[in-house]
Amino acid sequence: MPAEHMVRRFDDELEKLDATISEMGGLAESQLAMALAALREHNSETAEKVMKADNRVDELDRAVQNQVIRMLALRQPMANDLRLIVTSIKIASALERIADYAKNVAKRSLQIQPLTTPSPALSGVDRLGRLVQALLKDVLDALASKDIERARAVWTRDADIDDVYHGLVRELLTYMMEDARTISACTQLMFMAKNIERIGDHATNIAELLLFRWTGEEVVEERPRGTS
Amino acid sequence: MPAEHMVRRFDDELEKLDATISEMGGLAESQLAMALAALREHNSETAEKVMKADNRVDELDRAVQNQVIRMLALRQPMANDLRLIVTSIKIASALERIADYAKNVAKRSLQIQPLTTPSPALSGVDRLGRLVQALLKDVLDALASKDIERARAVWTRDADIDDVYHGLVRELLTYMMEDARTISACTQLMFMAKNIERIGDHATNIAELLLFRWTGEEVVEERPRGTS
Repeated sequence: MPAEHMVRRFDDELEKLDATISEMGGLAESQLAMALAALREHNSETAEKVMKADNRVDELDRAVQNQVIRMLALRQPMANDLRLIVTSIKIASALERIADYAKNVAKRSLQIQPLTTPSPALSGVDRLGRLVQALLKDVLDALASKDIERARAVWTRDADIDDVYHGLVRELLTYMMEDARTISACTQLMFMAKNIERIGDHATNIAELLLFRWTGEEVVEERPRGTS
Repeated sequence: MPAEHMVRRFDDELEKLDATISEMGGLAESQLAMALAALREHNSETAEKVMKADNRVDELDRAVQNQVIRMLALRQPMANDLRLIVTSIKIASALERIADYAKNVAKRSLQIQPLTTPSPALSGVDRLGRLVQALLKDVLDALASKDIERARAVWTRDADIDDVYHGLVRELLTYMMEDARTISACTQLMFMAKNIERIGDHATNIAELLLFRWTGEEVVEERPRGTS
């Protein structure tokens, strides 16, 4: 095959890779939104929908892996391309994890009985969820618009989420100690909060990968952590 | 540079990559062992040691990424090499996650007050930890000895760990409901159990990656899950 065709094929593959990752990002976002809605509205149908849709994300993660392998076989990519390719694999993994955590939130929402769940606890988890949703949206926007500064801004925001998360855990412990009937629900909420906090970590991790992809700079310092 | 030298350099890099991953594996194993010891012996010094050693694992994860980028720049690798390279990145990520979960177990062990911790609950977490330790050891042995059958065996064993984990969660909930003073410790133990269970998931995930690396076969079916 003439060299020119190879280059064109490589560029086509690059576009396809971007498209797959952006489809994964969209799915991860909507999975999180639906999981939070399922919790808020005690809607088991929505929860089931989230649990079913997770397969598609796993499929796309495997697709990224195979696309990358194909691209590497097509030509010997240069430094920039290589960073792009290597970070693609890692971003896909992070998005797959995010969708998986959303699925877990949805699954746990099925265990929440409104009668034995303190409603401020429920709102607390929802609030944390919205913070993390905004973070995830920002990092995906940064990815789509190749906006380095936006990616950098995401990186520093994780600390707020940490603080909200730790405050919520303390609140949940208090409910459990005050009323043993809430223990089961609050335990579920605590795990959900942890899952949501982990989604925030992965979003921040994607921001780090984007910085590495675009600048070659590696983020080795510990990122800002919450104070609590 | 003559072609022969390129090949030799590639093979050298391949060896270096294997060495880095096997160092990561050894560290992940020892981090988990020390975290469990810290919990068992209420030893805060050991816990601190685990928390400090985590940096080294993160460093090695970045080293794998850079080695892979260097190798891809050296030559256009063939299908087998590519699978090896792509799975190396993912295995390194999984080991980094495992070490991170071990660090989290160590950190939480500092919060465990022997007086308000039901000792069977503590032994339960330790038992789960040993099961997962054995699983991790097996998958690392499979990696070192390139033993496909051993990797395949790891893949099916995760279900037992799921069962033990879910039994333990039920047990912890019972203690919390019976005696509110145990809530704080049991919550920590529940998160530790979750972390340990996740280590098992990642070990299984490494087994899947090894199967893909050596055979090209992708494990798309759901792996066996516990019944509880």
